[in-house]
Amino acid sequence: MSRLQQLRSWMASRGLQVTIVPSNDCHFDEYVPDMFKVREYLSGFDGSAGTLVVTATEAALWTDSRYFLQAERQLAGSGIVLMKLKMPGTPAIPQWIASCCKAAGADPCSYKVGVDGDLFSYDDFATYRRELAPMPLETFTDPFDQLWEGRPGLGNSPIVLHKEEYAGQSVKEKYAAVAERIGEEGPFALFISFCDEIMWLLNIRGGDIEYNAVALSYCLLTDNGITLFCRRENLTAEAAAYLADQGVEVRPYGEIDGALAALPASTVRIVSNNCCAINKYNLIKGPGVLPDPTVGGTIAMLRACKNAVQAEGFRRAFRQDGVCWVRLLKFIYDNYCSGRLSEYSVTQKLLEIKSASENYRGESFEPIVAWNANAASAHYSFTDEASSARIAGGGFLLMDLGSHYPYGTTDTTRTIFLGGEEPTAGQKEDYTLVLKGMIALAQAIFPEGTRGCQLDILARGPMYRTGKMYFHGTGHGIGQWLCVHESPQIRMEYSPIALQPGMVMSDEPAVYVEGKYGIRTENAVHVVPFTKTECNTFYAFETFTLVPIDTRAVDFSLLNEQEKEWLKAYNTKVYESLKDDLSEEERTWLLTYVK
Amino acid sequence: MSRLQQLRSWMASRGLQVTIVPSNDCHFDEYVPDMFKVREYLSGFDGSAGTLVVTATEAALWTDSRYFLQAERQLAGSGIVLMKLKMPGTPAIPQWIASCCKAAGADPCSYKVGVDGDLFSYDDFATYRRELAPMPLETFTDPFDQLWEGRPGLGNSPIVLHKEEYAGQSVKEKYAAVAERIGEEGPFALFISFCDEIMWLLNIRGGDIEYNAVALSYCLLTDNGITLFCRRENLTAEAAAYLADQGVEVRPYGEIDGALAALPASTVRIVSNNCCAINKYNLIKGPGVLPDPTVGGTIAMLRACKNAVQAEGFRRAFRQDGVCWVRLLKFIYDNYCSGRLSEYSVTQKLLEIKSASENYRGESFEPIVAWNANAASAHYSFTDEASSARIAGGGFLLMDLGSHYPYGTTDTTRTIFLGGEEPTAGQKEDYTLVLKGMIALAQAIFPEGTRGCQLDILARGPMYRTGKMYFHGTGHGIGQWLCVHESPQIRMEYSPIALQPGMVMSDEPAVYVEGKYGIRTENAVHVVPFTKTECNTFYAFETFTLVPIDTRAVDFSLLNEQEKEWLKAYNTKVYESLKDDLSEEERTWLLTYVK
Repeated sequence: MSRLQQLRSWMASRGLQVTIVPSNDCHFDEYVPDMFKVREYLSGFDGSAGTLVVTATEAALWTDSRYFLQAERQLAGSGIVLMKLKMPGTPAIPQWIASCCKAAGADPCSYKVGVDGDLFSYDDFATYRRELAPMPLETFTDPFDQLWEGRPGLGNSPIVLHKEEYAGQSVKEKYAAVAERIGEEGPFALFISFCDEIMWLLNIRGGDIEYNAVALSYCLLTDNGITLFCRRENLTAEAAAYLADQGVEVRPYGEIDGALAALPASTVRIVSNNCCAINKYNLIKGPGVLPDPTVGGTIAMLRACKNAVQAEGFRRAFRQDGVCWVRLLKFIYDNYCSGRLSEYSVTQKLLEIKSASENYRGESFEPIVAWNANAASAHYSFTDEASSARIAGGGFLLMDLGSHYPYGTTDTTRTIFLGGEEPTAGQKEDYTLVLKGMIALAQAIFPEGTRGCQLDILARGPMYRTGKMYFHGTGHGIGQWLCVHESPQIRMEYSPIALQPGMVMSDEPAVYVEGKYGIRTENAVHVVPFTKTECNTFYAFETFTLVPIDTRAVDFSLLNEQEKEWLKAYNTKVYESLKDDLSEEERTWLLTYVK
Repeated sequence: MSRLQQLRSWMASRGLQVTIVPSNDCHFDEYVPDMFKVREYLSGFDGSAGTLVVTATEAALWTDSRYFLQAERQLAGSGIVLMKLKMPGTPAIPQWIASCCKAAGADPCSYKVGVDGDLFSYDDFATYRRELAPMPLETFTDPFDQLWEGRPGLGNSPIVLHKEEYAGQSVKEKYAAVAERIGEEGPFALFISFCDEIMWLLNIRGGDIEYNAVALSYCLLTDNGITLFCRRENLTAEAAAYLADQGVEVRPYGEIDGALAALPASTVRIVSNNCCAINKYNLIKGPGVLPDPTVGGTIAMLRACKNAVQAEGFRRAFRQDGVCWVRLLKFIYDNYCSGRLSEYSVTQKLLEIKSASENYRGESFEPIVAWNANAASAHYSFTDEASSARIAGGGFLLMDLGSHYPYGTTDTTRTIFLGGEEPTAGQKEDYTLVLKGMIALAQAIFPEGTRGCQLDILARGPMYRTGKMYFHGTGHGIGQWLCVHESPQIRMEYSPIALQPGMVMSDEPAVYVEGKYGIRTENAVHVVPFTKTECNTFYAFETFTLVPIDTRAVDFSLLNEQEKEWLKAYNTKVYESLKDDLSEEERTWLLTYVK
């Protein structure tokens, strides 16, 4: 029996006519651990975004334009229809389900739709319920332990201590700060589903999701203290001792539901719209349930503003990142003429260089090393030497790389021009306008209350003159040895969150020329005080990144004097900051490169 | 019996314990005709913003910081307590009413609050009702025809034709465009309260509000055509004939309520949240009432995007505006040394110059001529020579002036530096950073969908470096011989409206140094197509204003090459555009001035 048929049998046994299977896990994290890749298991489509809908006789998968080609390939022969989001004629999911109901000649009022209530937030659930009506929408709890033979488990990655010397704050201090923001005088309980919020709060780190230092966990923060729900056996002795010392109770992961159900009705229960699943909400609902009082989330806002110890840790991480980059760049320039470099070999080399870096805790995301046209393709990747491109001839090599250190996480993109021929005027213009945008944002001064979307034009504006633009955010928050994409200030153009001192984020304008090349220049910046006057308090950005910017493709006639000075000063600062950590040979190379 | 006592007698006769009197009129326009200045009549406070609340024994007036001093003075001895908005300890209106109820020992459930239901939108009414509960909130209709002896009438300003040669569109064409946007197939009725929307729709202009070419009126646009409710006797024969020709029915102003009540329930009734009074809403409410389908308002959005004929009219108006400015500037420079110039005499001169300008239809707002510190005061004004400042010694003279022509409305601010001494480094920095901001916004290129708030940093950013900022919008829409502040794109920093081709708006960064001077440089810009590529459609601004920018206080070291070129090219363009309309002497003066 096929996987879909197994699901259908189970649906029939439950009296369900339809099931909707989303991509996310029950923690609503950006990346999903293997155990929760149910949509991929059922459909064969392994893109990061897609929703599968299954009826007794039909199945369809909705995904966005990034994945049309891949989905078409992976769904071929499966009987699952590809639904292209935002394309003319594509029905919305509720509309499609209604048409299936009609085609089956069924009574809508008894055409039951079921969802795993741990995978839908209560807002999303309410929207689906409204849009599906009069068809009823029900929740169930994850049935795939039975239906999925060989399903991966929760994982055995150790949960380790994140030392206070890097966190800059004890759990007790964080607890006090959260409780103060919550502001409840009597009994209260804040329910936390986001694993990265829990790691931050408890000064621990895990490894259950690739590139993200998180352990699958839930947390309850109440007026009595903190309870962590996780695989207790994964805790190192050091972490367990620290949590005990900080008064944190640790219970098995599976006990969260019981704990939520046991909250007394007299407790003020606080949940966040974005991350509270409808199943969890149903366990705690009743009078006295309040939304999180802080826009963006109490924990997320506290976590976003790095303290002085953390900021120093980031500076240290970016110095080490800079040294690794210099070694990698030198390797590329030294070996380029051999004609034997490939995207794969460069990636291997960078992993080799980084592995030697003190305290290195792994990459913070899948490294991107893309030559010419490959850099313009949104989801380019390769698995080995053979499937990766040879770096030969001339052109742009785009590298987007990041590392975790216990004291900081890096995320840096550089695009370098290689080859004997000069870059064309068009290549130079594109490279220079991206650089102008990056510099303009990095130099912004702005008053308290300014949101990212109000600064976005600085990074995007120069490119607009050529009728080009990039279709991704200008920046995202960066976690400390956590997730490289950290809320709440993610995606500079839409977030309602005002930029606040201590926030760390990326500044990464880009341009992609289909079939030819992609150019992106990315530095990490840190919000710092600039001045306080009778008018207002003003902030500026400190640039953390210390990686030389290639000037070969710069058209200096497009830079004004001030931009030229910035570029020169930046590359000089890179040299001065890194020189003591480089070998004589590396130092000499860098000096020549930044001259 | 005092005015408040008369109101209280009437309240008692109606069984009301409290009345709330706002500032606005029943059309929710920016300026209020004398007839509707009830709050001023009752309280003696004549600021533009304030809400009076009257109980049987107490009275209080809420206003914002712009008016604290004025209100304190004007309320002295009235027994009306001044409530300073946004100051610590100031109660909200519902909170204050509740405390009056408590102090009176009254039962809240029978402590009735009444408002004129033509002065509260249905959203505002709902908010008050919720916040006052359990105290009941009721509506009444304007009782001041009885209570206010000598109340001004509706006005006898003629309602004249706005010729199609200037409007660029017939009423029939506008009707078709509105009906298409409304998109209803069956019977529908769009209710319009905004006088300026009605003027635009019907190609007519009035004079019931100073500086605004509007006639007090209501309008119903239905699937059958358009009905205008106004003082019919004010219509010129030409305007009446045009309306008849375009199929517009004209009925007396007072008949709007009956017409709303008579709308059949089967008609889809469309209202706008912002401008539908609760009294009017109560007349039409029932099933089938829909909000306006267009964000920003169907009429407002159509009106905002000027057609090619209108754009040409604006260019013509700005050329005439430029000529008047050159004459005024020359007059000031010629007479400055006499020591006899004053803010008043400059204002008289500008009115004299403008009166001679062909087709001049009056100022578009109260002229601002402010010398040094006076320009830093938000509400500075004078009434005659004696109360205005002498323009002598050295410093900045700020002039913000605008005119109506039948084909276009202007709004221009220039700040010039006068006197024998050089401006200080600080004065130059302030002047130059304002100019940099104005230029940066004027040069913006942006893709379809960009909102004003996304461009705002371009105008504000340069000034932030000095820890200074201005606390007003960077720009506002400009109507064609209508209101100089025109929705929907008013106040660049907050509006959710995307900038669209044809929109005309101001670009007016500024700096105010309390007790010293104010600097503002304002040009009007027009959204025009820039380029269309595979990425997007991009827009740019065309600058309409043709008034030389004074360069005496420019610190050229703060401008980059590109900005210097812009400034030079702009002043040259001003000269080239105006020279044929100037006398030999004026031309020579201007040539020297812009060199």
